[in-house]
Amino acid sequence: SAVDGIATVAKKTFTATDKNPVRLKEGVDYVVIDTGDPIPDEYDCVIMVEDLIWVSQDEVEIIKPAIPWQNIRQIGEDIVEGQLILPQSHRIRPADIGALIAGGVFEVEVYKKPKVAIIPTGTEIVEPGEELKVGDIIEFNSRVFAAQVEEYGGIPTRFDIVKDDFEKLKDVVDQASREYDIILLNAGSSAGREDYSKKVIETLGEVYIHGVAIKPGKPVILGKVNNKPIVGIPGFPVSAYFIMENIVKKLVNFVQGYDRKDKRYIEATLSKRIMSSPKYLEFVRVKLGFIDGKYIAAPIERGAGTTMSLVRADGVLEIPEELEGYEKGTRVNVNILKSEDEIKNTILCIGSHDLILDIAADLLAKRGKFTLSSAHVGSMGGILSLKDRETHFATIHLLDVETGEYNKSYIKRYIPNRKIALIKFVKRIQGLMVKKGNPLEINSLEDIVKKGARFVNRQKGSGTRILLDYELKRLGINPKDIIGYEREEYTHISVAAQIAKG
Amino acid sequence: SAVDGIATVAKKTFTATDKNPVRLKEGVDYVVIDTGDPIPDEYDCVIMVEDLIWVSQDEVEIIKPAIPWQNIRQIGEDIVEGQLILPQSHRIRPADIGALIAGGVFEVEVYKKPKVAIIPTGTEIVEPGEELKVGDIIEFNSRVFAAQVEEYGGIPTRFDIVKDDFEKLKDVVDQASREYDIILLNAGSSAGREDYSKKVIETLGEVYIHGVAIKPGKPVILGKVNNKPIVGIPGFPVSAYFIMENIVKKLVNFVQGYDRKDKRYIEATLSKRIMSSPKYLEFVRVKLGFIDGKYIAAPIERGAGTTMSLVRADGVLEIPEELEGYEKGTRVNVNILKSEDEIKNTILCIGSHDLILDIAADLLAKRGKFTLSSAHVGSMGGILSLKDRETHFATIHLLDVETGEYNKSYIKRYIPNRKIALIKFVKRIQGLMVKKGNPLEINSLEDIVKKGARFVNRQKGSGTRILLDYELKRLGINPKDIIGYEREEYTHISVAAQIAKG
Repeated sequence: SAVDGIATVAKKTFTATDKNPVRLKEGVDYVVIDTGDPIPDEYDCVIMVEDLIWVSQDEVEIIKPAIPWQNIRQIGEDIVEGQLILPQSHRIRPADIGALIAGGVFEVEVYKKPKVAIIPTGTEIVEPGEELKVGDIIEFNSRVFAAQVEEYGGIPTRFDIVKDDFEKLKDVVDQASREYDIILLNAGSSAGREDYSKKVIETLGEVYIHGVAIKPGKPVILGKVNNKPIVGIPGFPVSAYFIMENIVKKLVNFVQGYDRKDKRYIEATLSKRIMSSPKYLEFVRVKLGFIDGKYIAAPIERGAGTTMSLVRADGVLEIPEELEGYEKGTRVNVNILKSEDEIKNTILCIGSHDLILDIAADLLAKRGKFTLSSAHVGSMGGILSLKDRETHFATIHLLDVETGEYNKSYIKRYIPNRKIALIKFVKRIQGLMVKKGNPLEINSLEDIVKKGARFVNRQKGSGTRILLDYELKRLGINPKDIIGYEREEYTHISVAAQIAKG
Repeated sequence: SAVDGIATVAKKTFTATDKNPVRLKEGVDYVVIDTGDPIPDEYDCVIMVEDLIWVSQDEVEIIKPAIPWQNIRQIGEDIVEGQLILPQSHRIRPADIGALIAGGVFEVEVYKKPKVAIIPTGTEIVEPGEELKVGDIIEFNSRVFAAQVEEYGGIPTRFDIVKDDFEKLKDVVDQASREYDIILLNAGSSAGREDYSKKVIETLGEVYIHGVAIKPGKPVILGKVNNKPIVGIPGFPVSAYFIMENIVKKLVNFVQGYDRKDKRYIEATLSKRIMSSPKYLEFVRVKLGFIDGKYIAAPIERGAGTTMSLVRADGVLEIPEELEGYEKGTRVNVNILKSEDEIKNTILCIGSHDLILDIAADLLAKRGKFTLSSAHVGSMGGILSLKDRETHFATIHLLDVETGEYNKSYIKRYIPNRKIALIKFVKRIQGLMVKKGNPLEINSLEDIVKKGARFVNRQKGSGTRILLDYELKRLGINPKDIIGYEREEYTHISVAAQIAKG
């Protein structure tokens, strides 16, 4: 039965009306029946409990006729012998499990989840939490790989770090290739002096490919050892990420008989020109904003080592080989790393960096729904993004060197004839950052030249740079006399990091 | 270093040209350095190995000047103290793990994965593999729920089946609510005679809601026991599925601090009119085809018990409350259950059913890339779908009762002025299906009437029905004399199932 009620014979109810109800007796005319109960052969319909008027414990009245077969559903539902429940090479979803069991299929032959060995190598890498000596690098790639392999449907095992010792690495790889289905060897895959990966694979098996035309990710090694596929993955986190997403994922899926594409793309407008080498398929991380009803893609850092760029990225623009890049304003397909809903609920800020943006982002995230995403390109970059409708708001601090006034004249000059709200947010005093204790005793811009101090600058177009150049001119200092004037960083924090480093 | 090569001082290379190379000595002018190695303080740039000419073991020549800071990247990369790596309430993705560790964060406070107790109840349900008595139903909902809970990020535990015994069920629920974070109680949530769910929850805690205005899924119970949320889920698989996807998923996400929408929608054209009760938010399973560059949504079965409808569905159309449905041709948003890529690689067949379609689907799936998806609506339904460009092809067998010819005249009449390829595929002979051994000895259509046999028909518009009506007319048989002539099924297989049932 499809409902709770009574099973009866439809014919007996044909005369039932409001004024002339039909009375039925349990055992004689009907049996009480529940959802899912089978219908005894002598009955041909079910009347739901809501349509029954109980006149006694075992008698009911009906005031409208039942139709034969009403509320009756077959046992085994719509699955019958010989019918195809699932085709071959199908990835079983939760609902499929129900159909299989309902169809009497309690066992299916499946591809096994591949066991993936992840072997971090390198004398300079140390486990998180170990004491760091100069030159040490904390190992984290293997942890990222493990999470990715799990996402792809494999079973990851992280190995201990193997120092750069040819025989040791050979033994570990040999052993792993006997016990695991796929081997990932991390770091040492470019042509450096400690690159044992390639030699190890050549000694134990075969190297098929060393280097592919993708960027980041170029120096990957593909080979086999004891008939198991082995991938030598570059050490730089971003290179490693793209090799995982574009090669290892396919491999893990392939051995499971699954080769469908599941990257998701949206169409977006490129916020600035982007150059690419025609020799490579290049993956460019982008921020995505949903502004005035369309997606805007703003390229972010392209370095291979910047893990934060992957955290900040909302999507990846794939620039094919043979293309030299895209012009600003081009409509491009972007592989999205977040859901469209998340991207649409992201408030985009492009402009000058300030620590308060991080605090605001954190507080906003706590409240749910919206997230704040900021790209730090300096004040002028912010104004231009606002002009081109590529950001929801811009953080700026731009000194008008003629009037000494901030911001207003820039907005009027760059974004005329449009209503722009200028909100005074935080006031800040700018100064010089020096090493702890100010060992060189730098107390003015003149001191930088006088003491021959090494300087790190902010990029052209940043509010800080405009202020600096204004002050240098006022003081009659030639920028060429400042060591490192050409060395530009995009945020105050990056500048601080350079200073801390020495 | 960002590359393998040598660390040196840029100034020393400024005069280097093809004709006038600069020679550098190891230990004096440079040190060999690998990707990831730190740069000793006395050096300010790295020249990559590809740009070096080795003149001896410890001497290199350079033929172009290096730029200060080239190929140098900071330790700890772009992450510095005080910088926000991830905001609160963020779901950690693989790449985020890398950024956290690189930023020196080895521990983060996270929401725990909720432990979810799944308790199947009902005297009539039995474990798969147990011997079936009349009236027994194989338990599979709990297995589907477990797979769903895992997808949502919870940790499922399936309990043994609890028979309809009030005290027993109360004890199990009470115990579960002390050890688990969320309790799912399956079946018995509509108003039947064995409905202990509600009483059990009321006795142990509180029932907040019994019944919500969604369809399928209406009779759900929401309550709490020992301060733990408990959901009474209807027994019908499709009702259960929608309660899981729309209520339990939210619950599992909520206790993990995660409440973003991640349903994915596409815009599709509705292939036929669909009615809905304005009293409910209704979920209608649809097949999706990508035909002539746009998505077509074809509604499929709406019964609450048909597990196969969930397997066959490509998407779900959500018809809001207060709407009475949609007209044919309406552009609607459909929540997709497969990737767009999978839907675009699906060949759609709407028309008459034949077992060979299942075999073809299975063989096609084995070859990868494309899948075949067929909806069985009879031959006339197929022709009309083809006419409205809602299917890639249609399987038909339509007898022209005037000429005795098959198919051609129908295509000409219904799809004039368009090029349609008519491919002769399989030839079949149609007959009557009877019970094994043909106990009633039915050898002709006349015998059905003569022996008073119960008949199951195919629906109007099916090729089989047209043939039957043609033959009945020819033989002068009044359809009213056939018991069950009004009882229609949509496939031969459903008819066969009815006959097997008796």
